[in-house]
Amino acid sequence: EAMLALQGRNPVVQPLICNFHCCLKYCQTLKVHGVYLHLPPAYITSRVLNTIKPEKDVDGISDLNMGRLVRGDLSKGFVPPIASAVLDLLEKHGIHSDICSCNEISRAQTPKPVDQLAEEIGLLPEELEAYGRSKAKVRLSLLDRLHKQPDGKYVLVAGITPTPLGEGKSTVTIGLVQALSAHLKLNSFACLRQPSQGPTFGVKGGAAGGGYAQVIPMEEFNLHLTGDIHAITAANNLVAAAIDARMLHEATQSDKALFNRLVPSVNGVRRFSPIQISRLCRLGINKIDPASLTPQEVSTFVRLDLDPSKITWQRVVDTNDRFLRKITVGQASTEKGQIRETGFDIAVASEIMAILALADSLVDMKNRLARMVVGTSRSGQPVTAEDLGVSGALAVLMKDAIKPTLMQTLEGTPVFVHAGPFANIAHGNSSVLADKLALKLVGCDGFVVTEAGFGADIGMEKFFNIKCRASGLRPNVVVLVATVRALKMHGGGPNVSAGAPLPKEYIDENLSLVAGGCRSNLRKQIQIAQLFGVPVVVALNVFKTDTQAEIDLVCEIAKECGASNAVPCHHWSQGGRGSLELAQAVNEAASRPSHFKFLYNIEMPIVEKIRTIAQQVYGADDIELSPEAKAKIDYYNQQGYGSLPICMAKTHLSLSHMPDKKGVPTGFVLPIRDVRASIGAGFIFPLVGTMSTMPGLPTRPCFYDIDLDPVTEEITGLF
Amino acid sequence: EAMLALQGRNPVVQPLICNFHCCLKYCQTLKVHGVYLHLPPAYITSRVLNTIKPEKDVDGISDLNMGRLVRGDLSKGFVPPIASAVLDLLEKHGIHSDICSCNEISRAQTPKPVDQLAEEIGLLPEELEAYGRSKAKVRLSLLDRLHKQPDGKYVLVAGITPTPLGEGKSTVTIGLVQALSAHLKLNSFACLRQPSQGPTFGVKGGAAGGGYAQVIPMEEFNLHLTGDIHAITAANNLVAAAIDARMLHEATQSDKALFNRLVPSVNGVRRFSPIQISRLCRLGINKIDPASLTPQEVSTFVRLDLDPSKITWQRVVDTNDRFLRKITVGQASTEKGQIRETGFDIAVASEIMAILALADSLVDMKNRLARMVVGTSRSGQPVTAEDLGVSGALAVLMKDAIKPTLMQTLEGTPVFVHAGPFANIAHGNSSVLADKLALKLVGCDGFVVTEAGFGADIGMEKFFNIKCRASGLRPNVVVLVATVRALKMHGGGPNVSAGAPLPKEYIDENLSLVAGGCRSNLRKQIQIAQLFGVPVVVALNVFKTDTQAEIDLVCEIAKECGASNAVPCHHWSQGGRGSLELAQAVNEAASRPSHFKFLYNIEMPIVEKIRTIAQQVYGADDIELSPEAKAKIDYYNQQGYGSLPICMAKTHLSLSHMPDKKGVPTGFVLPIRDVRASIGAGFIFPLVGTMSTMPGLPTRPCFYDIDLDPVTEEITGLF
Repeated sequence: EAMLALQGRNPVVQPLICNFHCCLKYCQTLKVHGVYLHLPPAYITSRVLNTIKPEKDVDGISDLNMGRLVRGDLSKGFVPPIASAVLDLLEKHGIHSDICSCNEISRAQTPKPVDQLAEEIGLLPEELEAYGRSKAKVRLSLLDRLHKQPDGKYVLVAGITPTPLGEGKSTVTIGLVQALSAHLKLNSFACLRQPSQGPTFGVKGGAAGGGYAQVIPMEEFNLHLTGDIHAITAANNLVAAAIDARMLHEATQSDKALFNRLVPSVNGVRRFSPIQISRLCRLGINKIDPASLTPQEVSTFVRLDLDPSKITWQRVVDTNDRFLRKITVGQASTEKGQIRETGFDIAVASEIMAILALADSLVDMKNRLARMVVGTSRSGQPVTAEDLGVSGALAVLMKDAIKPTLMQTLEGTPVFVHAGPFANIAHGNSSVLADKLALKLVGCDGFVVTEAGFGADIGMEKFFNIKCRASGLRPNVVVLVATVRALKMHGGGPNVSAGAPLPKEYIDENLSLVAGGCRSNLRKQIQIAQLFGVPVVVALNVFKTDTQAEIDLVCEIAKECGASNAVPCHHWSQGGRGSLELAQAVNEAASRPSHFKFLYNIEMPIVEKIRTIAQQVYGADDIELSPEAKAKIDYYNQQGYGSLPICMAKTHLSLSHMPDKKGVPTGFVLPIRDVRASIGAGFIFPLVGTMSTMPGLPTRPCFYDIDLDPVTEEITGLF
Repeated sequence: EAMLALQGRNPVVQPLICNFHCCLKYCQTLKVHGVYLHLPPAYITSRVLNTIKPEKDVDGISDLNMGRLVRGDLSKGFVPPIASAVLDLLEKHGIHSDICSCNEISRAQTPKPVDQLAEEIGLLPEELEAYGRSKAKVRLSLLDRLHKQPDGKYVLVAGITPTPLGEGKSTVTIGLVQALSAHLKLNSFACLRQPSQGPTFGVKGGAAGGGYAQVIPMEEFNLHLTGDIHAITAANNLVAAAIDARMLHEATQSDKALFNRLVPSVNGVRRFSPIQISRLCRLGINKIDPASLTPQEVSTFVRLDLDPSKITWQRVVDTNDRFLRKITVGQASTEKGQIRETGFDIAVASEIMAILALADSLVDMKNRLARMVVGTSRSGQPVTAEDLGVSGALAVLMKDAIKPTLMQTLEGTPVFVHAGPFANIAHGNSSVLADKLALKLVGCDGFVVTEAGFGADIGMEKFFNIKCRASGLRPNVVVLVATVRALKMHGGGPNVSAGAPLPKEYIDENLSLVAGGCRSNLRKQIQIAQLFGVPVVVALNVFKTDTQAEIDLVCEIAKECGASNAVPCHHWSQGGRGSLELAQAVNEAASRPSHFKFLYNIEMPIVEKIRTIAQQVYGADDIELSPEAKAKIDYYNQQGYGSLPICMAKTHLSLSHMPDKKGVPTGFVLPIRDVRASIGAGFIFPLVGTMSTMPGLPTRPCFYDIDLDPVTEEITGLF
């Protein structure tokens, strides 16, 4: 490990010591006076090196150039000091005890202090903002510091068409990085989505992985984390409040009164705020002296003239509150009868969440927030957040949320948790910024493993066509997650539902159902990945009930179907050690040339882009647009939104729009009920059927079992 | 400052070095090898001391016992290393430039790293949870460690009846601690309320103080802080979602179906969760085997049978969203016609916020959360959060919010920011826990200055009768804040309103108006404090336009009226230096014996408690109860809530219920329109007139001027 012996009065090094007092390690051997200083890579500049005479007790410095030192330091950093603890855990619990004790496993493992983790992966102290002991936000200045650093390998984890039971993409993702870092000693980073509190307290429970492939502490991961979703909720609802208040004020005031209030005279002087000047520009009024506006210009400026029936902005809460799906607001007498019907979405369905996930800088996020369209004026003009004067405040509310949160896996390897846009009306992928930061940190031989929501037909397609377009990043490998259970269902097995006991087909060996699923849904999902020119590794997430014959059959057929490899994974019961085979397969596949290409040209007409996805990805014969959808597309073209990518809102339970059609449905026409647009996030989203944007609570929600011991502060029931 | 010279291999000290690597200071003089270690006081145990030979280069250790070291260290800690920087700021800006540059002043001052501040005030590293660089949560374990430490002096800052313009209680509070710590060298702590984002983006703007009496960084203070209000919002709305979902499920399922879902068979076994067993006990069903319940008992257990017209729980957002004051929910077809009218309050009006402010431990908070009554069953029984099965989850959501947040003033002195219950339907005081922690930290000669909302007739009365009852703490001094402007209004000056230009009476000298205000409202507010047996110091918050004659007159009359002292304050323009006189007056008053007594005996009938407050505090002839209020009081007595303290919901703009009646209104009867109860928070609140629990946005909200420079990350417009 890189160490320097320092002279106390050294003018160059001393300031470093002050900067890095938290890296100071106490001198164990007192043969030299002074202290050993473990310097973060970026500080080993030639200037520093020149001030230090190579000495026998200085190892690995003088002959290293900076680039290589960064490498070396990172790889050192990624050696997981607590991997062995996991193995101890294994001994303690024994295989499969985990099925009922994810909580216990998480608690039995003590996370490294986050500042230690940060130092191990080469972050500078000033690039870290700790939130408690075990999580920290990472400042975006890191991107500038490492901009010369080559990117690592970029791996996407996607799945076959999921069953109601879920196939374990998150655990595969975490198991894979645990194997890469803790066992293959390759730098790697997992990039995960922050879970919504709605499902956590509703049906699904936590999302920190499970068994021996978890993010720890799982309570922190599943609760408020560093407050990003709360910030999104605050920002989203400030826009909503601004919309209704503005409509009320416009309805009850003259142009003159509005102008006097919007541009008040302060000590006898009227000035437009910068936000107001932007609006004037958009309106083609190039004046900066308020007094110079004509009455007509005043009226145009002060009246957004929002059409109440054409407001698309909804309020949000991060709670499963079904009674807010459709509501009437403004019924208090103070609102003077300005009532209207609207609704709440779950916070992660907010366009602001989609923006957080796609923004690649603070500037970019701020511009996207300003561009968000909240509704249409009576004259048919889009009204934006900036027109409401709220865009600056939104950027202020979101200034910390844009920094990814650093956590660790059960084996002490680094994880970024950042953003978590809804996967049905948004793109369902974690943030561009987290991926970019991680790719720099791992270096060119390292791996960043990121996860896409739902099946490959949805999450992966959006990852390639939307997220990769926004980021400019190119994936090297797709890991396609499958389970024997899900394959049996696609092969014709009976329906299952969460909670209900599994039919015996799913418990006993049944090779024909397995084969059927492999040759239908699995094959199709592999082909979809290949449309984008990226090699596919199939990861079979093994369950206790799977037989060796079933496992072998899946791997064999997967390779026939074009997967560059297919391996079983035992991360749940064995942690990284159980995913070694997968890690090797991914490492091997990543060394092959990848010929990534987009599915469609962004300049194609909206209808053509939709048809391309429907036919080539879903396997539809054609699409059918409702009159409403047609009208919307015309409107978007006329507004100049025609060259945005497409974000399909479709059920994830089938390749088609019919949730009960498993395997590979054919001979269907995809109906496009309506088309909407998220201008700030930057995509058009066609609605295929009705998408619920607000889950509900069951009769017995998870929260019945969630509890806190007020003495030990131990949390139970969060899975 | 306490320093030790350490031998590298010392078995006792070496672990400390690892714990406290962040305290390591590089050895400047290399005459001794090893490093200097600045040890936090609590670690200077006899065991440590014995291992260290007193040496000439070890100062101030060997002859100190631990207790004295803690003391010494605290006082050392409170010497503000950056006070001089404030004076530099003053030179730079010159007096009064601040009026338009609070932002600039805040930015010009660099806050100490919060871990340094924490060390200075005697916190151990493991008692701190940093949230970024400049704020941190403090763990409650501190209370146990310091339980033997005597409390400091306890000072309440209250105000005369406020004008629409506010009288500056917050700036007086901050100026006072800056003077006590940074200039009188007395340990002191300010305890402030966390501001709601609603007003911050609405009309009021920030609440971090102003001028040279601010909490810094003011942006952090005014935005998400450490997420407490967001946690309250999440917890409050989880309860709301649980209420409506439960009513829907009860309306659509048989007893048997409900029971099967609420107590599901897992691998053939049915078990009650602990929360369900608590409900069974309350129902008098002392059985733990689900199979043993009779059909009648099953029905009693599964049906909360909430009366939709008697649900008192509202949803909340931390946004000024007037259109949510009255809404209809459940209008989507999925809710099967179970629509009902309800509304949203601002988050700080949630009972959960009042609980956070009054809880004195995690256990206490959890019990209060479980006790919260959300509505009444059709048979008239109260239904609690625990009946809904959600109380454990609420405690989990609030587990971090209960830890106070440590920040600092412009002069580097410590501040706790914690809780901020609405002052009109709740008690409007910061948290019991923050005050208790601060009182231990400052030690017996130190001062804790806490602030009460609104005028003394409301905020101070609730501080004494509700907060002090909950905490068991006894105040030493009341600081009563007044301004010449407000006194003139109480003396008969014309009305003013925020934004509108001030009438000349408030700009030119007018001794008769000033005298009128002093002899009416100021005198009465002093008398109210004296009802509780606590000495009063009047703090006149001086404005540029005040003349010396006006200032002298106020101080003179205030003393005539029984104030133990009355002094002008110039903290806004001069920081702590401008509040030295106040600090001396408070220090002197605190040395006098205080004979604190409650205004009423908690066991008095509810009506008598209300009458006592109305007559003795407000000066009413009597009270008049509406039939509704009478009925509620009977119901609360019957439910056993009769011995809770009273939390009046009354306008803050007059001692009476009539906002326009300034000075000291007499000859009025106080009408009690309705009476409500917060059983978890633990008070009954009578409604005097209508209280808005959801502010609105004006035509031009503050957010028009709030902006973020995406390159420098500088925030503008947050005052």
